[in-house]
Amino acid sequence: MTNWSEIDTYAKAWVKEAGVNIRNSFSKTLTIMTKSSANDLVTDIDQGTEQFFIKKIKEKYPDHRILGEEGFGDQLNNLDGIVWIIDPIDGTMNFVHQQRNFAISIGIYENGEGKIGLIYDVVHDELYHAIKGHGVFMNELELPPLKETEVSKAVIGLNATWVTENKRIDPSLLAPLVKNARGTRSYGSAAIEMAYIASGRVDAYITLRLAPWDFAAGVILIEELGGIATTLKGEPLNLLENNSVFVSKPGLHQEIMKEYLKDGNW
Amino acid sequence: MTNWSEIDTYAKAWVKEAGVNIRNSFSKTLTIMTKSSANDLVTDIDQGTEQFFIKKIKEKYPDHRILGEEGFGDQLNNLDGIVWIIDPIDGTMNFVHQQRNFAISIGIYENGEGKIGLIYDVVHDELYHAIKGHGVFMNELELPPLKETEVSKAVIGLNATWVTENKRIDPSLLAPLVKNARGTRSYGSAAIEMAYIASGRVDAYITLRLAPWDFAAGVILIEELGGIATTLKGEPLNLLENNSVFVSKPGLHQEIMKEYLKDGNW
Repeated sequence: MTNWSEIDTYAKAWVKEAGVNIRNSFSKTLTIMTKSSANDLVTDIDQGTEQFFIKKIKEKYPDHRILGEEGFGDQLNNLDGIVWIIDPIDGTMNFVHQQRNFAISIGIYENGEGKIGLIYDVVHDELYHAIKGHGVFMNELELPPLKETEVSKAVIGLNATWVTENKRIDPSLLAPLVKNARGTRSYGSAAIEMAYIASGRVDAYITLRLAPWDFAAGVILIEELGGIATTLKGEPLNLLENNSVFVSKPGLHQEIMKEYLKDGNW
Repeated sequence: MTNWSEIDTYAKAWVKEAGVNIRNSFSKTLTIMTKSSANDLVTDIDQGTEQFFIKKIKEKYPDHRILGEEGFGDQLNNLDGIVWIIDPIDGTMNFVHQQRNFAISIGIYENGEGKIGLIYDVVHDELYHAIKGHGVFMNELELPPLKETEVSKAVIGLNATWVTENKRIDPSLLAPLVKNARGTRSYGSAAIEMAYIASGRVDAYITLRLAPWDFAAGVILIEELGGIATTLKGEPLNLLENNSVFVSKPGLHQEIMKEYLKDGNW
């Protein structure tokens, strides 16, 4: 029998420890390298943080597998057993430009089912955290279930990219949503935006391309609170590949799916 | 001879005191009323904060005039003498939905010239602050001058509204900027976005309609650091009416003005 409470205790402690290291690093010069493009900045801190988690997990739970953004984990073809899906710094561009609006994101799955979600807003020391079936907490504060809402009252996380010419979606699909919603926001970190959904600060978040480590933790938090997480076609999210992601309060998800995303027929 | 140092000392103390009151208010129920539209939420705290500033200013400086968002100040037809331009809570929608990402914004002008700028991110206790000619500070930390940059390296504050159908600008003008910039963000508070420009977290901020109290403080901070503040036509900002606003690091302003905003010929 897996001791989820023990795993949770270790995961929280490691996330907090990594956060301290990241905060301390701000005083040092960041060594910034470029990955595949100038948009994809990565720092030595990013890589070091992933390696820190891998070392801790492998020491304590040698049979657990790890999927990490920086590629130091395992190569996964399935989600059998217990899998940690880790983004050591979600929102790297914000990390480099702003030293805020980034987060550590860890989702822990068992045979593909979300068990523990952790999103840590390092700068603000806010840990969003859930064990499946036991509620979602921001630090010690339990978050209430997500209430139904509608587009006209909603603040929606949506980047301008998706309503201008792009490779992934016809901009005319979501443009009317910008017009009809109460407002739109864009923070530049999927984990932060998903933590904002969980805490009710934003009502929905829509984006066209995320890797599993960008959303693995967030969907556990959101679903635990009664929110809905699918692709923009309305399909279940796949943790082994890139997905479009649409997470939302209930009611709002159905309305946007039907009125704007044509029930996935686009 | 106006004692700007004294005015500055009082202004900072009042802003901090107002911030404490706002933070304390979070535990109380917010009484939310609607102004002209559902998008324009205003709370009793918003109004109470403006009245707090007016009382303090009128007691200490009875000859100063006050232009405030909530309308408790003076009716101004000119900027003669010393004028305080106040937004007690810039980002009211964020204030209501998020209890963060809002700010107190105060710009103090003498005969139309910016003298003191204060933007207070209440929740994070970050006071961005300038006396003209004496540099800009975030709390006690002096902010460095803004360096030149270019679109391909820039993170730009731009809401999706301005690249979809709207009443103020042809969306095709700014859409290519979304594509060519390193990224775009939208935080939903002009004061916060302008403080982010001052601190180098965002490189430019573009919006089509702001009232004077939304930008009065921000432009003082940004110009003090060598940034550029104009309308989207490239004209000087007018503190007695609504304006489009384009604030930016140097170099980037010229590039966007020429390559995207057609030197104002739109």
